[in-house]
Amino acid sequence: MREHPDVLPLLPIQRGDREWLHGFDGRRYLDAVSSWWTCIHGHAEPRIAEAIAAQARTLEHVILAGCTHEPAVTLAEKLLAIAPRQAGRAPLSKVFYADNGSAGVEVALKMAFHWFRNAGEAQRTKFVALENSYHGETLGALAVGDIPLYRRVYAPLLAEALFAPSPDAFQAAANETAEQHAHRAADALAAMLAEHGETVCALILEPLVQCAGGMRMHHPAYLRRVRDLCDAHGIFLIADEIAVGFGRTGTMFACEQAGIAPDLLCLSKGLTGGSLPLAAVLTSQRIYDGFLDDSRERAFLHSHSYTGNPLGCAAALASLAIVESDDVIARNRGTAAKMAERAAAFRTNPNVVDVRQTGMIVAIEMSTGSGKDGTAVEISGNRGLRAYREAIARGVLLRPLGDVLYWFPPYCIGDDALDLLADTTRHAIDAAFGDPTCA
Amino acid sequence: MREHPDVLPLLPIQRGDREWLHGFDGRRYLDAVSSWWTCIHGHAEPRIAEAIAAQARTLEHVILAGCTHEPAVTLAEKLLAIAPRQAGRAPLSKVFYADNGSAGVEVALKMAFHWFRNAGEAQRTKFVALENSYHGETLGALAVGDIPLYRRVYAPLLAEALFAPSPDAFQAAANETAEQHAHRAADALAAMLAEHGETVCALILEPLVQCAGGMRMHHPAYLRRVRDLCDAHGIFLIADEIAVGFGRTGTMFACEQAGIAPDLLCLSKGLTGGSLPLAAVLTSQRIYDGFLDDSRERAFLHSHSYTGNPLGCAAALASLAIVESDDVIARNRGTAAKMAERAAAFRTNPNVVDVRQTGMIVAIEMSTGSGKDGTAVEISGNRGLRAYREAIARGVLLRPLGDVLYWFPPYCIGDDALDLLADTTRHAIDAAFGDPTCA
Repeated sequence: MREHPDVLPLLPIQRGDREWLHGFDGRRYLDAVSSWWTCIHGHAEPRIAEAIAAQARTLEHVILAGCTHEPAVTLAEKLLAIAPRQAGRAPLSKVFYADNGSAGVEVALKMAFHWFRNAGEAQRTKFVALENSYHGETLGALAVGDIPLYRRVYAPLLAEALFAPSPDAFQAAANETAEQHAHRAADALAAMLAEHGETVCALILEPLVQCAGGMRMHHPAYLRRVRDLCDAHGIFLIADEIAVGFGRTGTMFACEQAGIAPDLLCLSKGLTGGSLPLAAVLTSQRIYDGFLDDSRERAFLHSHSYTGNPLGCAAALASLAIVESDDVIARNRGTAAKMAERAAAFRTNPNVVDVRQTGMIVAIEMSTGSGKDGTAVEISGNRGLRAYREAIARGVLLRPLGDVLYWFPPYCIGDDALDLLADTTRHAIDAAFGDPTCA
Repeated sequence: MREHPDVLPLLPIQRGDREWLHGFDGRRYLDAVSSWWTCIHGHAEPRIAEAIAAQARTLEHVILAGCTHEPAVTLAEKLLAIAPRQAGRAPLSKVFYADNGSAGVEVALKMAFHWFRNAGEAQRTKFVALENSYHGETLGALAVGDIPLYRRVYAPLLAEALFAPSPDAFQAAANETAEQHAHRAADALAAMLAEHGETVCALILEPLVQCAGGMRMHHPAYLRRVRDLCDAHGIFLIADEIAVGFGRTGTMFACEQAGIAPDLLCLSKGLTGGSLPLAAVLTSQRIYDGFLDDSRERAFLHSHSYTGNPLGCAAALASLAIVESDDVIARNRGTAAKMAERAAAFRTNPNVVDVRQTGMIVAIEMSTGSGKDGTAVEISGNRGLRAYREAIARGVLLRPLGDVLYWFPPYCIGDDALDLLADTTRHAIDAAFGDPTCA
């Protein structure tokens, strides 16, 4: 608020086109952050635009209580068909809609909590989350987030959560591999659950990448251990794939890379291809059955006016059709390899301490940061601010998280745009460290 | 969940058209509840559909942090131009966007709470809400709601709130007018604030009509008293006009009928004409200034990926243009009068205990109900269920709140549809009470 008028002038955007945002200033900007990780197929994607237009002329919305409509049903079926599966575990088979990621997380938390009350285990009131996690900013979602800037001031309003050490590979000890560090974090979680497991209803995490927490990545071994620990303690596993779902990490969903399926899967952001707010929470028949009762108080009631909005569902169906027709998962493997080539040069940059990648996410960490507060806040600190401004001047919307510059582009990004992104990132780092040649 | 397969079969809707929903069964249904109070101009409104289509082809979305776009700016300006004003009070002059009503309420609550912490009044941690209120179902919004079915099971997760007696005129004593009852409720609030005022940061209410609480209505004198009490105690007044805004009560906003302006105004539902999830929280320069600081922890940070979504803003601008071009507020006065004529007959119905109206909302209460649990829950109890089924059979989506049947139609509803609505309501009441002629 203080910075926007002068230090960070707002950028007025007129139109979008693939990976480009066109400003009212006549310039174009590469959307390197996919507009907060939502825009997977590029801006103003004509197939999504046409699906939205057709739906708006037909049925823009109808109450989803008592009524139903084809886009909501078809989308639910498609999501269940592509959801992560795990051998020996019943597949996810039910879908609950909400409007945005925070609401989706709240749905999952409430469902887990309520299920155990219905099951007669009212002592299971707590949630476990990971250090450095982010799950949204409504008060329920904020309670399971560990980014101090967002939560500290609201602490008196938040429900109790337990925070387990993050498996973040960047925090590995000098002599430790990412996998070893993942196991150490899992061991700490095991100890926490040994002590508190009976009072916990659910564990929530962002599989493979803690995004708002600075694009910190972990080894999939952690997810397998968590899955086993949750099963051992009878705790539900909530996978928040709001940012990482729909092909971002190299597979349709991040959980696949660990061969696990969660009990509750939260989806949003890329769900509509980046066009409209919509969320879906996938869950199991077992959880569904826990609410089936003649008593309304034992049913799961959580409503938003626009739950299952037909326009959002139509956009999501168009987005999923593009994933198939454009063979996006395979194409992303090629694009991710090109990103890796361009990211490699940063490993020898003296101002860079880490270069990491998971699929279509590359993170370049400029320094060891100044603790948790510094790492996870967008465009914070002088370095982040200078990098952001330099990138804007060069036509790239590169929005750092503290000292972490990251590439999180629309999947359709072209080679020239990747070159511009890499070149601009180099200049942004120079600018961050005050190199006079980049003044 | 239990009822839907058999007792309440889901109604599959294929398309919409003005006040009508067309089912896959080839029948049409009058949407007497405006699809959870969202659809103000009718379904598939062509001007809104065209605005959405054009926006989808231009700029479907862009991150609203750091960037901005014309629909968000223009909509903010229009909302501020029509916001309720009060003599001697600075006008609302700032807009914060969110995705849905619950998130809008959470924004207002967090803003009020945080403002006082910034101002050095950290003891102001509590919210006051009204008995029988509803403000949404994410955990922060749920904390200020008083409908037991929605909140009771989640109580261990909810922040503390104080509930003041409702001014609901239906609860007036036998010898009391609605205005006298409003003053009695205000007196009780005054006593509560005399005791707890210094620990309260905000009071939240639904002006004129507690909608989910059974379309219970109160005299505007209550709002004037609340405004004065909030000022006297230095507490922010949050008006939740999510359901009642945009002409529903006879004026553009309900607060106008009391001549008051709130400190925070929450808007959603009808904001987009019923097409897309979007919320806006309007507030004052004074509240804005309380967050202007070089410290980020003192800034107001609350983000949703799709905040200020261009498609939602474009739909909202089209909806506001219709309010003007179709002279909706004046036309609604005529339509409300027609609703009043048709509602009058129910005053002598032996199974009806109350008929009440505020603008384009008519509520017909079938019995004295069975306490709070019974009144506020959709299609609950045998009477509500029978009435709902009878209305569906007659081509009307009339979705009772417990024993309360209500008319909350799209503003474009025609005379024939009003006749059908009144006729069907009569049959629904007969069916609710088991009249064999309606079996």
